[in-house]
Amino acid sequence: MESNNQSISELRKDLVSGDWVVMAKTRAKRPEKSMKCPFCFPAIKEQKIISQTEDIIVIGNKFPAFRPQSDLNKHEYGPFEVMNGAGFHEVIILKEHSPQLYETNLFALIETYQKQYLSLMNRKFVDYISVFHNHGKLAGASIEHPHSQLIASPVIDPDIHRSLDGSENYFQKHQQCVHCVMVDWERKEKIRVLYENSDFIVFVPFVSRVAYEIRIFPKEHKPYFERINDSEKNNLADALQQSLKKLYFVLGDPAYNFFLHTAPCDGKTYEHYHWHFEILPKTSVWAG
Amino acid sequence: MESNNQSISELRKDLVSGDWVVMAKTRAKRPEKSMKCPFCFPAIKEQKIISQTEDIIVIGNKFPAFRPQSDLNKHEYGPFEVMNGAGFHEVIILKEHSPQLYETNLFALIETYQKQYLSLMNRKFVDYISVFHNHGKLAGASIEHPHSQLIASPVIDPDIHRSLDGSENYFQKHQQCVHCVMVDWERKEKIRVLYENSDFIVFVPFVSRVAYEIRIFPKEHKPYFERINDSEKNNLADALQQSLKKLYFVLGDPAYNFFLHTAPCDGKTYEHYHWHFEILPKTSVWAG
Repeated sequence: MESNNQSISELRKDLVSGDWVVMAKTRAKRPEKSMKCPFCFPAIKEQKIISQTEDIIVIGNKFPAFRPQSDLNKHEYGPFEVMNGAGFHEVIILKEHSPQLYETNLFALIETYQKQYLSLMNRKFVDYISVFHNHGKLAGASIEHPHSQLIASPVIDPDIHRSLDGSENYFQKHQQCVHCVMVDWERKEKIRVLYENSDFIVFVPFVSRVAYEIRIFPKEHKPYFERINDSEKNNLADALQQSLKKLYFVLGDPAYNFFLHTAPCDGKTYEHYHWHFEILPKTSVWAG
Repeated sequence: MESNNQSISELRKDLVSGDWVVMAKTRAKRPEKSMKCPFCFPAIKEQKIISQTEDIIVIGNKFPAFRPQSDLNKHEYGPFEVMNGAGFHEVIILKEHSPQLYETNLFALIETYQKQYLSLMNRKFVDYISVFHNHGKLAGASIEHPHSQLIASPVIDPDIHRSLDGSENYFQKHQQCVHCVMVDWERKEKIRVLYENSDFIVFVPFVSRVAYEIRIFPKEHKPYFERINDSEKNNLADALQQSLKKLYFVLGDPAYNFFLHTAPCDGKTYEHYHWHFEILPKTSVWAG
């Protein structure tokens, strides 16, 4: 329990947007360069391993944005609300040091996302679990070895919050899932569809935030990623692999981030939501 | 009128967030590298000059995200709403090719922001005017020569939309301007204040999106940037210069963007709003 109560990050509520923002003070110290890969053997063995399988090792992030706390310590500071950055920050590492994620065992990766999700979703102070993957320096990956991250925290990410709100508003107005409407339209149009199998569809959305943004949706309406079954995991691995392969060959190994968008695990119901992955390549920056 | 009706960009409304998103097809073609500076003499003389003073030249952006259109052509496309990217996209260039903006005549720059703002705010299809400045490659500036941009468009930028909504919600709940609350608190606390003069205060906000984010506020509650007077322009130039100088010396010439946040010019009233500048340095990327 040496530092369980030591707050290395703080959550501060933005007065204007109402978003909870993480102020993580120590993360700036994390190493930019390293001679040997810290995620390969033997270096990885020095880490505290949370779980492992044949293909994957899960460790705690050495520079966590959130860490276990015995108390949220929610309080006011001037006009602001503030609380501890309580939660879990795990790194999910493929044992194979492959330069490209699509060449690795993605079924094992997705299975680990689900397993770690399920192991944390009912923990104290955990209301949302973010799962994401950064590839390439421009996308913020300081280590080349393929690794995803999982953050379990007491607050819902602002991006997800807007996605949930938008989805709920659309449902109230149209009695339909907004994501189902888009999926159905893309399946009919076929213009932007990159790949499809029995469970998943992959397309470049008609309205996107960055060039070549890719989204992977379950074809059926499903709010909760963590309920995915084995055959769906297989098909998701396939859809993700095809997406990353296309990105690699069409754009020439761009940096990218991908994020899981799924319903919060805060005890409320989110039947209007439709979980999916968003892949955002870094092809250029807003410029003029 | 050769290409007035040719739509080189399109506005598409995101079904989930309700944000209007610009899909600008030709902007990817803009040059990444150029041997001679296109914003210095004589190259700049080949451009169509919109206006100029002793210190500043305003030209049309060669690769505009928005351009004049005779019709918005608002229509439905599948489940989506779509319209033309009607508007104006100007580049505001300091004649002096200085590597650092803070070394140039910022009063002239601010005066031009206001002048161009006033000249476009009552034009057809103009509901919002964005003013921003990118410095450094990482911040999306493809040309080193200091230049700001001004976009006048029929839609309100999503970031500004959220800022306006948050500000309005806070006002309805507390009968106070949320930005005044923050300004007053920072003036009392003094911890995060970087600079202050009779009209403006500069501080690092308690809740910020990026490390070393800086905001410049008029101390008095004012919603509309375009109503700034000469003595305020002088003090704003001073506050902006001090901010950029601090950024340069403390962080060692980081790339940065700054944005004007001001009330829309869509004919509605925004008395709850408080205009300001947000300066966002690119010190690192979200990483793990």
